[in-house]
Amino acid sequence: MTTVTADDVEQAARRIGTHVRATPVLALEAGAFGTPGPLTLKLELLQHAGSFKPRGAFNRVLAATVPAAGMVAASGGNHGVAVAHVARALGHRAEIFVPAVSAPAKVDRIGALGAEVTVGGAVYQDAQDAATARAEETGALLVHPYDHPLVVAGQGTMARELDTQVPGFDTVLVAVGGGGLIAGVAAWFGDRVKIVSVEPATIPAMYEARRAGRPVTVAVSGLAADSLGANAVGAVPFAVAAPFVDDAVLVSDDDIRDTQRALWASVRLMAEPGGAAALAAIRSGAYAPAPGERVVVVVCGGNVDPGSV
Amino acid sequence: MTTVTADDVEQAARRIGTHVRATPVLALEAGAFGTPGPLTLKLELLQHAGSFKPRGAFNRVLAATVPAAGMVAASGGNHGVAVAHVARALGHRAEIFVPAVSAPAKVDRIGALGAEVTVGGAVYQDAQDAATARAEETGALLVHPYDHPLVVAGQGTMARELDTQVPGFDTVLVAVGGGGLIAGVAAWFGDRVKIVSVEPATIPAMYEARRAGRPVTVAVSGLAADSLGANAVGAVPFAVAAPFVDDAVLVSDDDIRDTQRALWASVRLMAEPGGAAALAAIRSGAYAPAPGERVVVVVCGGNVDPGSV
Repeated sequence: MTTVTADDVEQAARRIGTHVRATPVLALEAGAFGTPGPLTLKLELLQHAGSFKPRGAFNRVLAATVPAAGMVAASGGNHGVAVAHVARALGHRAEIFVPAVSAPAKVDRIGALGAEVTVGGAVYQDAQDAATARAEETGALLVHPYDHPLVVAGQGTMARELDTQVPGFDTVLVAVGGGGLIAGVAAWFGDRVKIVSVEPATIPAMYEARRAGRPVTVAVSGLAADSLGANAVGAVPFAVAAPFVDDAVLVSDDDIRDTQRALWASVRLMAEPGGAAALAAIRSGAYAPAPGERVVVVVCGGNVDPGSV
Repeated sequence: MTTVTADDVEQAARRIGTHVRATPVLALEAGAFGTPGPLTLKLELLQHAGSFKPRGAFNRVLAATVPAAGMVAASGGNHGVAVAHVARALGHRAEIFVPAVSAPAKVDRIGALGAEVTVGGAVYQDAQDAATARAEETGALLVHPYDHPLVVAGQGTMARELDTQVPGFDTVLVAVGGGGLIAGVAAWFGDRVKIVSVEPATIPAMYEARRAGRPVTVAVSGLAADSLGANAVGAVPFAVAAPFVDDAVLVSDDDIRDTQRALWASVRLMAEPGGAAALAAIRSGAYAPAPGERVVVVVCGGNVDPGSV
């Protein structure tokens, strides 16, 4: 079974170096968002391309030899923006297959970064199939959004950074789509901290996978589908994350929207639905920290139309 | 002559303690916003009430005995929001006199924090006169937005925090309205770093004061007038800041607006015009760092309607 270790994360950190930003943390006041104890936000939405995704994409691409055909990826969302950013930063061509349902703001951002945008079917899996076919046809490097050890290790650099920024915390809450970020967190921290998976109730991929003991396909809908909309956790992320994920909770779209608004009202941060989901678990009580429990919440994406919040 | 020293800032930091957030810094990549060397943003827009203003207001209020009549202030902007926040946090009454020209979003936020909002004339000076009269009439504590040593010392805690976060930087750029923040920066750093004043060309209060050697009255207009719209630098801030401000530059409203958009596009931060002004000086070339010069820019406010950026 493929696995990803803290050593792989360490190598990823050395490989990607200053291609990614060290994103800051913000320690909030007692009682913020309803926590009984200390609450710290990891501001990963300030990363290049507006989400954590460049960490994994840089690690995947820098470890490979990129052919003249460049790189190809499927995503109408944050991964697409990240791969376009990586391609521009490293001077490669990129073709991004986007499903027809993608958010126009994200598709526009992919194009603005200089990547070629191709509509590849109705939903995400169609686009992934089209990207895979194109990679086989041209020899371009296929950069998967989550189901690859190097992508998981790259996302883990977020956790490595956090480890030095917030020494001795107890619990980290991470939003889950395909599982790349939480797997990276698990690879780095193992059982040193409590790791909580948060998903929209409308996309319970990790929640159901933990019950089944393996990735299972779920229906996908709701407010955060443009970033957390994988219909199953990836095989690689599940294998890495499952031994170390201590709890999996679900939040409603109303909780997510309310949390986006609360983040703006009280911290002047503009998170996308998927970026606000983990904090929504605190605010709604879906995850209730014990008194004194030192909690970190990853705010993992900010690619949102500000007028929609 | 009243002055404010680093020791006053130290006392302010002890006094206000955890009433304010330690706001994070974000080290940007080489070349960001056109800088030749390292550029770090101080994210003071993530402060309570969306700007640095609670630092000074908490210090002023906590050093006083607040009468049953509570506190009174004049501001249709960030200071009004801050005083309303302070009053709520400490359990006091607050009446805020707002000029009729104030931004509705800020006035609404003042009211939402539980303060009494009274329209006090057409422009800021009318509101300040009305607030002063009310304080004399009721005995309420008048909390001036900038022209008071305790307010300046409180704003200086931002600089004290920055000093530990970014060791050994060369230059800090600070937007100037009434001068409270830059005076606090000067009180803390003195001549240890280069201090650059940035103002809209439409409100050159510090620029003209430095030429004249004393505060002078200027016309007030433009995009950032709702936060940087004092028609003169205060006497106390000028006395504290003038010996240590090394340069004063001006930026256009177009530069400010472009910088707000660039902050959103590349860092996912939503700054108000006054909050983006200091970075606009870098981006526009109004202040051109030398190669290798380690620059910090204070992003000092985020009370903006996101749809307006």
